[in-house]
Amino acid sequence: MVVTETREIRTTGQGDVRDLTAVVADVIAASRVSEGLATVFVVGSTAGVTTIEFEPGAVDDFDRMLETLAPRDADYRHHLRWGDDNGSSHVRAALLGPSVSIPFRDGKLLLGTWQQVVLVECDTRGRSRRLVIQLLGG
Amino acid sequence: MVVTETREIRTTGQGDVRDLTAVVADVIAASRVSEGLATVFVVGSTAGVTTIEFEPGAVDDFDRMLETLAPRDADYRHHLRWGDDNGSSHVRAALLGPSVSIPFRDGKLLLGTWQQVVLVECDTRGRSRRLVIQLLGG
Amino acid sequence: MVVTETREIRTTGQGDVRDLTAVVADVIAASRVSEGLATVFVVGSTAGVTTIEFEPGAVDDFDRMLETLAPRDADYRHHLRWGDDNGSSHVRAALLGPSVSIPFRDGKLLLGTWQQVVLVECDTRGRSRRLVIQLLGG
Repeated sequence: MVVTETREIRTTGQGDVRDLTAVVADVIAASRVSEGLATVFVVGSTAGVTTIEFEPGAVDDFDRMLETLAPRDADYRHHLRWGDDNGSSHVRAALLGPSVSIPFRDGKLLLGTWQQVVLVECDTRGRSRRLVIQLLGG
Repeated sequence: MVVTETREIRTTGQGDVRDLTAVVADVIAASRVSEGLATVFVVGSTAGVTTIEFEPGAVDDFDRMLETLAPRDADYRHHLRWGDDNGSSHVRAALLGPSVSIPFRDGKLLLGTWQQVVLVECDTRGRSRRLVIQLLGG
Repeated sequence: MVVTETREIRTTGQGDVRDLTAVVADVIAASRVSEGLATVFVVGSTAGVTTIEFEPGAVDDFDRMLETLAPRDADYRHHLRWGDDNGSSHVRAALLGPSVSIPFRDGKLLLGTWQQVVLVECDTRGRSRRLVIQLLGG
């Protein structure tokens, strides 16, 4: 069985991290799939998906690590192409990856108590993000 | 067909990297699934899963890169929340991601000879880790 | 339904990034799977797979970030083992991860317009890379 759903989320720009756990749980609850793999995929090349303890401190620490890795105000060759200012966004997103896959059983995501699925907005401006949530299983 | 198994592994703390390849291969061998996707997922927000050549030099090089990225003794806002000392663990784990998915065929993981599936413990103390190994296929 | 295909690609060494989007789309088009998950997995421990806007500026920015993270000419303990010179390759590849999974529907990958699936060669020399492209779905 395959279930493919899309959801739209409005973000505020770089550093905005959104908890998607309830969104994914709702897709599972509304389906007839009780055991399988839930993939959360963000459409676009300037955002990522991962898991983290969703509390403001850890989220801010993560954002500051990404800023060290790929400073927003550094020079990027990508800026030369379109006059964009989001070179930092592209390299952060490529490093994070666009998706995460989480097993579920008995209709429940097998996450830890302090482990949430999150969208990491890397773009310099707010975006309307399309998420694909896909269930494979039975 | 879906097979969802859990395994527990005791780690020694940050820098402990465990080869899970045989664990995953055993789950495949004990199943009736011969072709599909094997997902290895770690429950919790302070460990990651990836592939690496599992030899002490490469494993140590990887650990040192993570220490440069997110030094254990730096200040983290996460520490302010619970008096924790594992801010470095959270950001490393969020960057690595909690899972890896590996195709298999004829009952064999399609890994390279020098490519092993590993659990990367990022927490500052030893933990009992729950791993979910899920097979999708036929 | 499970479809598992392999493809070989010749790379030129560290910094070579190849757009695999058409390769994956062709595997979907040649199959009878219209909706599901496409996993692209690279065999071996010195290359990675992710998504990026495939234009020379962003690709070069990404390569420079990887060089900052894991400089090619630094000392690596992996070099002591075999006299290899590719310690930087192993740690970069372990950080990137060997695979990415992309949902598809109506026979189309649900990627953004500026989001391509890429192989990131991290090895110091050119390699013949085996890619596994696996479709799960119906």
